[in-house]
Amino acid sequence: MNRTKYNMWLQYRPISNIKQYELLMNEISVFGDTPAIKSAKVEVDFALSKMLNQAIKVKGEDPTAKIVIGTIEKLGNLLNETQIQKLKSSNDEGYLLSSSNHQLKVIGNSDRAVLYGVHHLIRLVQLEKDISDLEIFQQPKNQFRMLNQWDNLDGSVERGYSGNSIFYKNGQIVQDKSRIKDYARYLSSVGINAISINNVNVWKEETYFITKKYLPEIKQIAEIFRAYGVTLYLSINFASPMAIGGLSTADPLDQSVKEWWRDKAAEIYEYIPDFGGFVVKADSEHRPGPFTYDRDHADGSNMLAEALEPFNGKVVWRCFVYNCLQDWRDRSTDRARAAFDHFKPLDGRFHENVILQIKNGPMDFQVREPVSPLIGAMPNTNQIIEFQVAQEYTGQQIDLCYLIPQWKQVLQFDTHIKGEGSSIEEIVAGNIHPYKYSGISAVSNIGDDENWTGNTLAQANLYGYGRLTWDPSLSAKEIAQEWIIQTFGNTETIIGTIEDMLLNSWEIYENYTAPLGVGWMVTPGVHYGPNIDGYEYSRWGTYHFADRDGIGVDRTKETGTGYTEQYEEPNQSKYNSLEHCPDELLLFFHYVPYKYMLKNGKSVIQHIYDTHFKGFNQVDGLIERWDSLKQYIDEDRFENVQDRLQRQKANAREWRDQINTYFYRKSRINDQHNRTIY
Amino acid sequence: MNRTKYNMWLQYRPISNIKQYELLMNEISVFGDTPAIKSAKVEVDFALSKMLNQAIKVKGEDPTAKIVIGTIEKLGNLLNETQIQKLKSSNDEGYLLSSSNHQLKVIGNSDRAVLYGVHHLIRLVQLEKDISDLEIFQQPKNQFRMLNQWDNLDGSVERGYSGNSIFYKNGQIVQDKSRIKDYARYLSSVGINAISINNVNVWKEETYFITKKYLPEIKQIAEIFRAYGVTLYLSINFASPMAIGGLSTADPLDQSVKEWWRDKAAEIYEYIPDFGGFVVKADSEHRPGPFTYDRDHADGSNMLAEALEPFNGKVVWRCFVYNCLQDWRDRSTDRARAAFDHFKPLDGRFHENVILQIKNGPMDFQVREPVSPLIGAMPNTNQIIEFQVAQEYTGQQIDLCYLIPQWKQVLQFDTHIKGEGSSIEEIVAGNIHPYKYSGISAVSNIGDDENWTGNTLAQANLYGYGRLTWDPSLSAKEIAQEWIIQTFGNTETIIGTIEDMLLNSWEIYENYTAPLGVGWMVTPGVHYGPNIDGYEYSRWGTYHFADRDGIGVDRTKETGTGYTEQYEEPNQSKYNSLEHCPDELLLFFHYVPYKYMLKNGKSVIQHIYDTHFKGFNQVDGLIERWDSLKQYIDEDRFENVQDRLQRQKANAREWRDQINTYFYRKSRINDQHNRTIY
Repeated sequence: MNRTKYNMWLQYRPISNIKQYELLMNEISVFGDTPAIKSAKVEVDFALSKMLNQAIKVKGEDPTAKIVIGTIEKLGNLLNETQIQKLKSSNDEGYLLSSSNHQLKVIGNSDRAVLYGVHHLIRLVQLEKDISDLEIFQQPKNQFRMLNQWDNLDGSVERGYSGNSIFYKNGQIVQDKSRIKDYARYLSSVGINAISINNVNVWKEETYFITKKYLPEIKQIAEIFRAYGVTLYLSINFASPMAIGGLSTADPLDQSVKEWWRDKAAEIYEYIPDFGGFVVKADSEHRPGPFTYDRDHADGSNMLAEALEPFNGKVVWRCFVYNCLQDWRDRSTDRARAAFDHFKPLDGRFHENVILQIKNGPMDFQVREPVSPLIGAMPNTNQIIEFQVAQEYTGQQIDLCYLIPQWKQVLQFDTHIKGEGSSIEEIVAGNIHPYKYSGISAVSNIGDDENWTGNTLAQANLYGYGRLTWDPSLSAKEIAQEWIIQTFGNTETIIGTIEDMLLNSWEIYENYTAPLGVGWMVTPGVHYGPNIDGYEYSRWGTYHFADRDGIGVDRTKETGTGYTEQYEEPNQSKYNSLEHCPDELLLFFHYVPYKYMLKNGKSVIQHIYDTHFKGFNQVDGLIERWDSLKQYIDEDRFENVQDRLQRQKANAREWRDQINTYFYRKSRINDQHNRTIY
Repeated sequence: MNRTKYNMWLQYRPISNIKQYELLMNEISVFGDTPAIKSAKVEVDFALSKMLNQAIKVKGEDPTAKIVIGTIEKLGNLLNETQIQKLKSSNDEGYLLSSSNHQLKVIGNSDRAVLYGVHHLIRLVQLEKDISDLEIFQQPKNQFRMLNQWDNLDGSVERGYSGNSIFYKNGQIVQDKSRIKDYARYLSSVGINAISINNVNVWKEETYFITKKYLPEIKQIAEIFRAYGVTLYLSINFASPMAIGGLSTADPLDQSVKEWWRDKAAEIYEYIPDFGGFVVKADSEHRPGPFTYDRDHADGSNMLAEALEPFNGKVVWRCFVYNCLQDWRDRSTDRARAAFDHFKPLDGRFHENVILQIKNGPMDFQVREPVSPLIGAMPNTNQIIEFQVAQEYTGQQIDLCYLIPQWKQVLQFDTHIKGEGSSIEEIVAGNIHPYKYSGISAVSNIGDDENWTGNTLAQANLYGYGRLTWDPSLSAKEIAQEWIIQTFGNTETIIGTIEDMLLNSWEIYENYTAPLGVGWMVTPGVHYGPNIDGYEYSRWGTYHFADRDGIGVDRTKETGTGYTEQYEEPNQSKYNSLEHCPDELLLFFHYVPYKYMLKNGKSVIQHIYDTHFKGFNQVDGLIERWDSLKQYIDEDRFENVQDRLQRQKANAREWRDQINTYFYRKSRINDQHNRTIY
């Protein structure tokens, strides 16, 4: 095992300037011995010893130690009144880092908060920050900071690009769970506090996860995560009462079904007292759900919610519901409308422990989509937004695509749901509507590849997801810098070069793939590489309507599908108007001729040619920049990225040429610069 | 098991007018007791008893019996001088059916010939022909009448549309070989005399077929086929000396490799003394071959031929060789040229026990292709033509596509290789060049579906393949009638209706799929259903080049790939000329504007619209015709075909609409009849 690859951003690399830390960092006292506190203790000892390259003296519970770590309950007496007030006004996950020349205190409102505080301290040291005069109060902006594993019991990972599952192998839960423990460490280090450990598509055998066949082992996994402050959830099969319960129905209003789930919940909580709850994909892409019984999503989710309520469990109900048997001939149905049309009318009918999980865009994690108009549109229903750290449509961890800028753009989008300032960021933080639960969830990008994420640089997306979810005010650049230093070292050339690569990578990927927000020009099924008409005559509701004259989807209210009306003003008018619609989303909302002039001064067709030639050339730039780091990066990680960049280049070439040829054949409009179009 | 489905054309249905046969058919004497003679005996007894609905008296070797059956060796004394002369001037598989009121004689030049004669007799009775005054001499026109199974040891069948393999299951050769025996019966009934029992793509474990791990069981299979006159071949992995022989090379000129194969051949023949030989796919679609060692196909095949020569074994060397990593940007490479370019220069260099197997067209079993110019182009090299009974590109045994008319068209094609009259039929019969071995081979369409071929009506392709290969002068209609009567009964309504369905089905399928010979507009990989651009930007060399102005592949010598020059005159000029190129192959040879006028008086685009609307409507016609037979056909077979026809209709609808929409979007030329184009 190559530890450098494996350790991601927790390298704990010896720092150059040890002096500034020497005085403080020679003894630690950690108060308490719950599993999470123990984890904090082990971690801080391990991290400081390595970074400072010296043994740290670990004391018993001694309030005079140089570093004291613990909960406010244990260490409140070391704080002044202001500090106590500030901490108490923070949420349960808030903590304080306070230091003087004599002592450094890491004091949290809970065990979990202590763990976060310890990682904050470790991070400061690894980033070589001055810690001599700290007074940092921190609490996460989002309550839910969740990851969804799409792992299957056979060891495969749906939409996984980093090898196989770390949870399952050959139809069994892995015996050696040390890698799961390490995963939990990484998650806690960036503040992830919830995880669902099986694919939202719950297949036959996985349906038994909520039975005694698997619960004893899942309990072990829950214990591992608990020690790192991560609450365990399971994806469940809505048809379980029939599939494994011997009932003849799964009707959510049927008394026997309700009882079955109530008993089931009780059984699960016997094994896992702090079980988070269920993640449910129902009535979506052929998964069973309440529709079978003429019930709706509220009926379905509330029934589960009632079962979980006595135990404080939650139902995370996915809103990825659309007609996946659409007829391409049917121009009136618009998949983009589906989530809003399905769920908005149900607002107010959901139990307070039901949380709707809504993908960031109305389609499916394309490189460019507008923000889903459903987010924030249900004042009386808990919502969390769903991102995809796994790069399904954004290069599959072969191509470089640092996603933090995309997510930030989504979070900063102002819905105007309650007037100006109703950003997605504030909505999912629960600051616009009085949500009981809210936050962010995402599909994980890890697997059993030695480096966890296939492409080493894709580690930055996992890191950044956690950091951004904790604190959305962090910039993409700050996050990139933090990650680079922790991962590769505090060297200016490295930081500058990789930061530049990361920050430009989303634009580069967009340049050479589907243009102007139209999406979906990918190889069906696989979702990697170009296939311009691949989804054009399909049943998936994913069309671009390119013809001899132009391209784009008319979603206006006057002549199109009326999707624009799902937005509040002024977004509605902006998107609906050809004049005001931003270039980058033009083809998502409008059908336009190839010669239509964009706001950037180019015709659509020339923009397509230009961005595709440019995007390919930019990949060459990425390669050059990476190659310039050869002397700075260990061979294994250097070659891993180098190899991926070469594959990205081949992919970009294929995209460039297929897109350009496709549109040239359709339009016969020449490139103004006479570059080669085949 | 439903025997009616299973029995295909060997139903042995009681006939209505028994009287005409009563006198003759009450006793049989079969001479000899070799396995093949025994098979003949069992079959004739079984068939006549069932068809005549009475027990037949089976006598010992009694030359006075009403029916006498045996080889000329045993029964020559019952023949007159003319008969003996005629038989002796026939080949080894020739036989005589001769009858008077007193006796009916079935006398063959070999055991195998006797079996064929017996099946001829059975067929005459099932067809209710007068047999009171027969004097029929028959011999097959083609020496090789072969089937290739593309079966894998895991039980799958490459390009199989009739369930799984009848030979293999779960990584093993099937224990119960009764179904293999029945398959052998069917093959002998239509004169098939050779079979290769494993996929030409020889994977890892199948490479061991030629070792003692599998030979004992393959010997059993060979014995089963031997008893029905069918010689067994195996597909081999050219890299076997390395993969299983422990050598460091598979270079055909290496002495140790030659020795390895010589020893291997000797070993195989110890198990199977009449082993047919090897079928080889080399240097094609990533299969290993002589190119690795800078050797050519002659080097590769001759080396194997030398190993097999002492045992009279043959090498069947496939010519399906092309660049399957082509760059779609490269307009100069033409896959259609590949077989000819590769093999023609090697003429004369092959051993006399090497036989080249050449697909009927230059591409790959499309619904419409020109005939491969390689067939007949090598006067000094044995050749067999390869058809595909499996409907890979012709509806996959869901859609009805009776292929005999297509094959007949190929066989009747006059290559002019040695002046007029150099038809493919005469070439592969060995009548144009002095081939030592020649004939016809084909990919089988059977699997373990109860009815063998998925669609019951697809049985007609297997039946017809055998009959046509024996006697290419039979018309598609004659073969259809024979098959229908034997399969469904001698009822005029049935015969007329199904015959009409079969005979029109190829045209119907062509109507709604890829137009005017251009091919390849299918779903990649699967090869079923439309995907107009599916292979357009691929590495497979399969392009249609449709753009805003027109469509087609320029293969002329002046402006195109020069493929037309591979044909002899006058075919070369005919195909090369826009004026003379037949409509149905126009887009195979020429790029033309959408408004180009066809010889049929329509523009290309209007022809596309017309044939696609028509083709879909014709499927409705097929459904109507089949439905009219409800009262005549047993429920199981009726519903099987009914179900397939409904699926065909859905497929035809998808083809019609995608093709029409695709070309309308590209051309914006309206349908003259204003029918719905989406």
